[in-house]
Amino acid sequence: MEFDLIVRNGIIVNPTDRIVGQDVGIKDGVILCIGSNLQSANPANTRILDCEGAFITPGGIDTHVHLEQWNTPTGDTWVTGTRSAICGGTTTVVAFASQNREHDTVLPIVEEYGALAQGRSYCDYAYHLILTNPTKKIIEEELPILVKEKGITSVKLYMTYDPLKLADRQILDIMVATRKLGVTTMVHAENHDMIAFIIETLLERGMTEPYHHAVSRPSIAEAEATFRAISMAELMDTPILLVHISSQNSARTIRDAQTRLLPIYAETCPQYLWLLSDRLKGDNFEGAKAVCSPPPRDSAEDTDAIWRGIANGTFTTFSSDHAATKFYTEGGKRLGIIDGKPLFTKIPNGLPGLETRLPLLFKGVEEGRITIHDFVRVACSNPAKLYGLSRKGAILPGKDADLCIWYPDGKMEPFQLDNSMLHHDIDYTPYEGMTFKNWPRYTLLRGQVVWDRDNKGLVGNVGDGKYNKRTASTLPGPRSVFVNEWRPPM
Amino acid sequence: MEFDLIVRNGIIVNPTDRIVGQDVGIKDGVILCIGSNLQSANPANTRILDCEGAFITPGGIDTHVHLEQWNTPTGDTWVTGTRSAICGGTTTVVAFASQNREHDTVLPIVEEYGALAQGRSYCDYAYHLILTNPTKKIIEEELPILVKEKGITSVKLYMTYDPLKLADRQILDIMVATRKLGVTTMVHAENHDMIAFIIETLLERGMTEPYHHAVSRPSIAEAEATFRAISMAELMDTPILLVHISSQNSARTIRDAQTRLLPIYAETCPQYLWLLSDRLKGDNFEGAKAVCSPPPRDSAEDTDAIWRGIANGTFTTFSSDHAATKFYTEGGKRLGIIDGKPLFTKIPNGLPGLETRLPLLFKGVEEGRITIHDFVRVACSNPAKLYGLSRKGAILPGKDADLCIWYPDGKMEPFQLDNSMLHHDIDYTPYEGMTFKNWPRYTLLRGQVVWDRDNKGLVGNVGDGKYNKRTASTLPGPRSVFVNEWRPPM
Amino acid sequence: MEFDLIVRNGIIVNPTDRIVGQDVGIKDGVILCIGSNLQSANPANTRILDCEGAFITPGGIDTHVHLEQWNTPTGDTWVTGTRSAICGGTTTVVAFASQNREHDTVLPIVEEYGALAQGRSYCDYAYHLILTNPTKKIIEEELPILVKEKGITSVKLYMTYDPLKLADRQILDIMVATRKLGVTTMVHAENHDMIAFIIETLLERGMTEPYHHAVSRPSIAEAEATFRAISMAELMDTPILLVHISSQNSARTIRDAQTRLLPIYAETCPQYLWLLSDRLKGDNFEGAKAVCSPPPRDSAEDTDAIWRGIANGTFTTFSSDHAATKFYTEGGKRLGIIDGKPLFTKIPNGLPGLETRLPLLFKGVEEGRITIHDFVRVACSNPAKLYGLSRKGAILPGKDADLCIWYPDGKMEPFQLDNSMLHHDIDYTPYEGMTFKNWPRYTLLRGQVVWDRDNKGLVGNVGDGKYNKRTASTLPGPRSVFVNEWRPPM
Amino acid sequence: MEFDLIVRNGIIVNPTDRIVGQDVGIKDGVILCIGSNLQSANPANTRILDCEGAFITPGGIDTHVHLEQWNTPTGDTWVTGTRSAICGGTTTVVAFASQNREHDTVLPIVEEYGALAQGRSYCDYAYHLILTNPTKKIIEEELPILVKEKGITSVKLYMTYDPLKLADRQILDIMVATRKLGVTTMVHAENHDMIAFIIETLLERGMTEPYHHAVSRPSIAEAEATFRAISMAELMDTPILLVHISSQNSARTIRDAQTRLLPIYAETCPQYLWLLSDRLKGDNFEGAKAVCSPPPRDSAEDTDAIWRGIANGTFTTFSSDHAATKFYTEGGKRLGIIDGKPLFTKIPNGLPGLETRLPLLFKGVEEGRITIHDFVRVACSNPAKLYGLSRKGAILPGKDADLCIWYPDGKMEPFQLDNSMLHHDIDYTPYEGMTFKNWPRYTLLRGQVVWDRDNKGLVGNVGDGKYNKRTASTLPGPRSVFVNEWRPPM
Repeated sequence: MEFDLIVRNGIIVNPTDRIVGQDVGIKDGVILCIGSNLQSANPANTRILDCEGAFITPGGIDTHVHLEQWNTPTGDTWVTGTRSAICGGTTTVVAFASQNREHDTVLPIVEEYGALAQGRSYCDYAYHLILTNPTKKIIEEELPILVKEKGITSVKLYMTYDPLKLADRQILDIMVATRKLGVTTMVHAENHDMIAFIIETLLERGMTEPYHHAVSRPSIAEAEATFRAISMAELMDTPILLVHISSQNSARTIRDAQTRLLPIYAETCPQYLWLLSDRLKGDNFEGAKAVCSPPPRDSAEDTDAIWRGIANGTFTTFSSDHAATKFYTEGGKRLGIIDGKPLFTKIPNGLPGLETRLPLLFKGVEEGRITIHDFVRVACSNPAKLYGLSRKGAILPGKDADLCIWYPDGKMEPFQLDNSMLHHDIDYTPYEGMTFKNWPRYTLLRGQVVWDRDNKGLVGNVGDGKYNKRTASTLPGPRSVFVNEWRPPM
Repeated sequence: MEFDLIVRNGIIVNPTDRIVGQDVGIKDGVILCIGSNLQSANPANTRILDCEGAFITPGGIDTHVHLEQWNTPTGDTWVTGTRSAICGGTTTVVAFASQNREHDTVLPIVEEYGALAQGRSYCDYAYHLILTNPTKKIIEEELPILVKEKGITSVKLYMTYDPLKLADRQILDIMVATRKLGVTTMVHAENHDMIAFIIETLLERGMTEPYHHAVSRPSIAEAEATFRAISMAELMDTPILLVHISSQNSARTIRDAQTRLLPIYAETCPQYLWLLSDRLKGDNFEGAKAVCSPPPRDSAEDTDAIWRGIANGTFTTFSSDHAATKFYTEGGKRLGIIDGKPLFTKIPNGLPGLETRLPLLFKGVEEGRITIHDFVRVACSNPAKLYGLSRKGAILPGKDADLCIWYPDGKMEPFQLDNSMLHHDIDYTPYEGMTFKNWPRYTLLRGQVVWDRDNKGLVGNVGDGKYNKRTASTLPGPRSVFVNEWRPPM
Repeated sequence: MEFDLIVRNGIIVNPTDRIVGQDVGIKDGVILCIGSNLQSANPANTRILDCEGAFITPGGIDTHVHLEQWNTPTGDTWVTGTRSAICGGTTTVVAFASQNREHDTVLPIVEEYGALAQGRSYCDYAYHLILTNPTKKIIEEELPILVKEKGITSVKLYMTYDPLKLADRQILDIMVATRKLGVTTMVHAENHDMIAFIIETLLERGMTEPYHHAVSRPSIAEAEATFRAISMAELMDTPILLVHISSQNSARTIRDAQTRLLPIYAETCPQYLWLLSDRLKGDNFEGAKAVCSPPPRDSAEDTDAIWRGIANGTFTTFSSDHAATKFYTEGGKRLGIIDGKPLFTKIPNGLPGLETRLPLLFKGVEEGRITIHDFVRVACSNPAKLYGLSRKGAILPGKDADLCIWYPDGKMEPFQLDNSMLHHDIDYTPYEGMTFKNWPRYTLLRGQVVWDRDNKGLVGNVGDGKYNKRTASTLPGPRSVFVNEWRPPM
Repeated sequence: MEFDLIVRNGIIVNPTDRIVGQDVGIKDGVILCIGSNLQSANPANTRILDCEGAFITPGGIDTHVHLEQWNTPTGDTWVTGTRSAICGGTTTVVAFASQNREHDTVLPIVEEYGALAQGRSYCDYAYHLILTNPTKKIIEEELPILVKEKGITSVKLYMTYDPLKLADRQILDIMVATRKLGVTTMVHAENHDMIAFIIETLLERGMTEPYHHAVSRPSIAEAEATFRAISMAELMDTPILLVHISSQNSARTIRDAQTRLLPIYAETCPQYLWLLSDRLKGDNFEGAKAVCSPPPRDSAEDTDAIWRGIANGTFTTFSSDHAATKFYTEGGKRLGIIDGKPLFTKIPNGLPGLETRLPLLFKGVEEGRITIHDFVRVACSNPAKLYGLSRKGAILPGKDADLCIWYPDGKMEPFQLDNSMLHHDIDYTPYEGMTFKNWPRYTLLRGQVVWDRDNKGLVGNVGDGKYNKRTASTLPGPRSVFVNEWRPPM
């Protein structure tokens, strides 16, 4: 066999096994074979990469990334966002194309968003579709086209935010289609009315600091909507993925559903492992740097529960929910400060996180909170399965040679994170000052080294990334088990 | 002491004790004392009622009764409804005054409803207020008046039915007021959108039989809304009473909340103990006789769970949800048959149940499913406490002498129920043919025998019943425990 | 009617109601009647006691008291123990007659223990029987005699302690008899082997301080044995009472069983509400003053759970588990100090608590943790029901006039507890220094004031107390529900 | 590369992925590589095996097999038992070496058992050690030798059976060693005293039919012991594997522990998926053919729960618990018939199951109850990980080429099982008459086809099997999380 590249001497990790003493042979961007002591038939043209005993994980897949959305002001473009992804070990991102309420067709929207990424991405990419106005035509006519022709096999629905939220009825209507088409249905679950009511009273009371953002979105709002979304999914026998779950109560509710074998999937994010709500406090508006929705929770009880939820399998995927805005915008202005005073409702929601996602999760492996298999499962392999990235997420022959190679134990000098080390176009990171003992050493995108930390650093190029047409989820789907004699439209 | 009446030789039952060998001395409609071998100072004017060793329970209190509501067509008037109450051992009913969407004030509504009952009731009575359009003015200005001046200390909210349902936000708004005022907040919890969606698909499929009513309102719709209502109550630190709970899942959710000491109360009804959904099947439109919402459930798993919920304390109250319509209306017409074909959406929801409520619960005592103390707790004493009927619900000195005296064991001839035995103005009972081994032998309203089954039968008179101004609930209320730093308006 | 005493102007409390504005008329030690404005036919001979608006609760019933047991060295005798009971509002104690392993009959034992109390008790009393060697003869022949002739209707079993513990099989054997006879079966549930194993390793490691007692009996040992005892009770369809439950996990397990309607009862004690394990630390061997089994738990999570368990009904009874030994014995010696060094295994287990039990529980009422009805339920009425003290535990006509009258709000000067204020013969109290805002003002035993705090203090006499022959429990018993086709011997 | 064998055109299945269109290259019994379109450098010496699109799973690993144990009379020898294993797709068995109570050393026992298998096994094999008398010497001195020198890294403990059962204390003692050594601790969890008590009463009542065996071992006995074993494991921070879990309650208890991340593992068996207790009824002593412990349970609620437990991850492994005895022994005698009458206590416990294990589990895949990944996880990969069979259980380069190749869909003629088709030496199968739509078509042991169903059938030879020295479990082990400050000896 001929190889372009042989990766030697690593510990290949998949969700259940460590493969030691075996080589990965790569040709034309694809893993050709995995085997003992591989030799290329054309050694002169074959590069050898020695892992020195380190872990090889699949390239990270970040399936919750906001880039250049109309409704998400962001300092990161496709260029800067995906650049940081590569430098953090992530080789595929799935971002959002987003419908406005006034759009009565989504086909052109998908085209527009597609155009934004084309030629401007460092890593491979795909799109989810956010539905905010699910007309009959969109549901019945356009979704099938998106699935079949565009390879867009996932939609995202919001239960909160005035410009985005859907009524229960709309969610049920959409589920009819997603069930039929095998479309993965992502749900942002927070009870809108609870939050709106709290915000109003906070504003009346003059409680407008960044920290009040956390107060305004209590975990009970998430838990309620989570339970409701699961109930609808059970009624409709339709799988859902609950995005960015942040709290113990929601995790428990999800686990209960999974115990009963409902196809309920859940995502969590680095901010719910590493940040607490007191990070929204602080002088000089510093708290604004940790404003996201749902907010970081109040105590370690919740962060412990989220770690535990990764370890016990409650969480299916781990994403960044990268939705980054500069702290200082033009002219030294800070969004969320109105007339010189903080107003949390005007602080853009969301954190930068594409580049730090994998290293932050890897810290949990080092600390014994999760296994390296859990890492691979939630950050690489399940995202590929759930969203139908059929060429991605696994170090197996036939798959794209997207790899993340770590440092062997003790080889990397521990360092404290400084935002200037990162490759996004954001002027802060909420993880400033954290110590890291490991970091992606090499990132390989379809067999090409695009990140080589010890040498040239970023060596990939803008435009390296290709669009991925996706298939349906390969995780368990509808079970044909119903709550009574009624059946959803099929 | 002088007595008008001494009740002797019964077993006086309260929620925790049986008092044996003691007499109840009554004067001017009030229990003057309970003691051993009471003697009247004026024996000539004192009637003696010998219970022959039977149970004496407080007169039944039915706190969920629909009579002459604008939106509830009913064959029963105040006259016929309360007549049947008395004959079934019930001495107080709480019915509903109901706001229309277009009403921007509720004060006159309450007057109108009050006028309907005045002079037309056989038993004592009071009103809840149904809110369907909770304007700021009603909430902030009128509710306090109702509480303080009218003694109306409870409201009912719907989460379903197009003309009645409130959004979550409206419920939260109302809770602000009910928390402050100590107003008991009743919630009809079913997820509207789930049900509407199912109904639509059923109609499209031509599934319009009475039985499809049961199919259209699955227990998951109740369980979801129950969880949501509890979540809002927890956020607002406000007690609620979930009406007519029918299913195991909801009961479990309520029990969990109670375990955590949330002030969550729950009601169930005879139909959820004795009927299953297959009762909505049957030839000749017979199934229409069991159409109510929520519907009877599908299997004994649910009815067993409801019995268990009474015995373990999950259920606070037991009401009839009497909402009766004649099966045959004028000209032999049957509501719910359109163009000769059944259409379940047009069948009036609700069953007759005022008269059979206590006997049906008492059967559970005979069968060992609940104790006689459970009976008194849910059918008499808790309804009085929860709704602030401060003179009612207990056989204690100082309370109104409302009593229900049963037959001693074996004294009454068992019989099979025939609708003609009942005193309502409805042409059927869903319990036709059931065997009863006991039934209220005497009903006493404020010291007067108004029902004497073995002799003259109904001896009370229309207009005997008086309006009861109510106080706040005396069951545990707000706990000043909150979900995070946020506080509801106080 | 003639009365010896009329108690006026109090709030009579039972487990569900407050009776206001009614008098209690007493004659010959018995409550003759409760009514409005009672007048005695012989006013000259009738004492009037004015409660000034305070709570009247039934006299306390303490059903877990160790006095003069062979295996429980105690500084309190029947005389001093019951003296302190009276001064703390308790009018009935149930102590233990205890079988030794070598006893092959229990009839004489019961006689001996009975003789100890006779003429030496200030309050009414009864006995449980501790079984440590349940021979066939004792089970089949003697227990029926005890029940029928002696009115001893409860046994206590230990799952731990070398001289006391029974094997599962012995417990099953006993349950056959207790089920048939309606004997209340008390179980001390801790896993013996876990504790023995831990103690051994602690001693090997030289960890012998009082605090290591708490370490040696972790709550998991209690939770395991609780689950096991409940499993046996379920198999045998036999009620049990789990004594002195101390931890959240056990409380949860019990609640789950109760939800399923198993007749599982549970007791807790003041030490699990007010003490934490760090009280076993301290200089000068002070920690020994809080050594009891199970030990106080490690954090407020457990004490909160126990309070919650009283409020939500998990706990049936509240007892002192009074088992008191002097801190300094003769010659200034302290038990548990061996060769000048602490050895926790030699510290007598148990605390003094008879006198402080009710005031410590009442503090929970003041703090809003429980209601006054919860207080009465667990401290007075359920103990009477569970152990068949048919004349006790309720303020009802026909019952013994055992009353505890409290101070009206604000009437008593708050004070800090000092052991010298107590009437036991123990040289410490673990509650030293706690502030009390209320305390029993009057204690009445069968109509006689025996404690009058503001005037003469203790006015009862040794020997006032009478033995109570008990009936079977009146709380729900066997349900005739079995785990499969097998039936226990009946 | 040179290969002895290339397996083409199958779907390689691991616990999370299906690998399609890739070949498995095998050399010297080991998987050399997996890759696209493998070509051998020495094609003449390379056999090609075409899977025709069928599933390739790892060879089955049956880790609960009783063969030639002193205390388990069995009709199957190492020869016949492992022969049937091969023919059912199983390539490795782990059987038991069993200590007698009187043995004060286990080293010679292990030798003796080892000798029994040597040269007499068709498949690879290893041993667990059953401990019935865990002396200090055995625990402290011999277990380390077994682990380090013999590769015996698992012990099995019984909580029931008179000749086998250990006290809680003995289990704790053993856990000290197993924690230190990383030895997998298998626990047969049933409450001995409950069962003994029930058996006694059944015998007294003359209830001695085979069916009464099921009655005598109710699921509550399993659930109790399961909870107890988990409690001990939690105290000791030591992983355990609960063998042959049969009931819903136990599964729920285990799931709860796993949710909390306790390293609790569980096994189930085909009989708990496919048999109900009514199979122990039947004429002519037929019920004896389904006698095993725990017994099949009473209703589909339990079998459904067990299937669900495989799908949701509660169950770690799936074993046969093969413990087979002939129905008719010499002279037509049937064990368990005494003096012509059935006596269930004399019926040998256990079923034949080695050969049918994988096909019975595969039926669950066909019926949609579990996925093919679940199949591989519980039947192949987890058994290898949990018991340290480091060369087994995965189709990965470097692992032994043990494969089970199934039929492509629709290729095999469905058949009804007849015991004569099986290769054990037992005269019945409890699965007689069941229809199978798939069955292992080829079994490969270290690269050799040993079973070729369509051609020569059994082609392996006695003595092919080799002993496997095992390492420690690679599933999560002790967490260094403890119940309080106490630590087990380390």
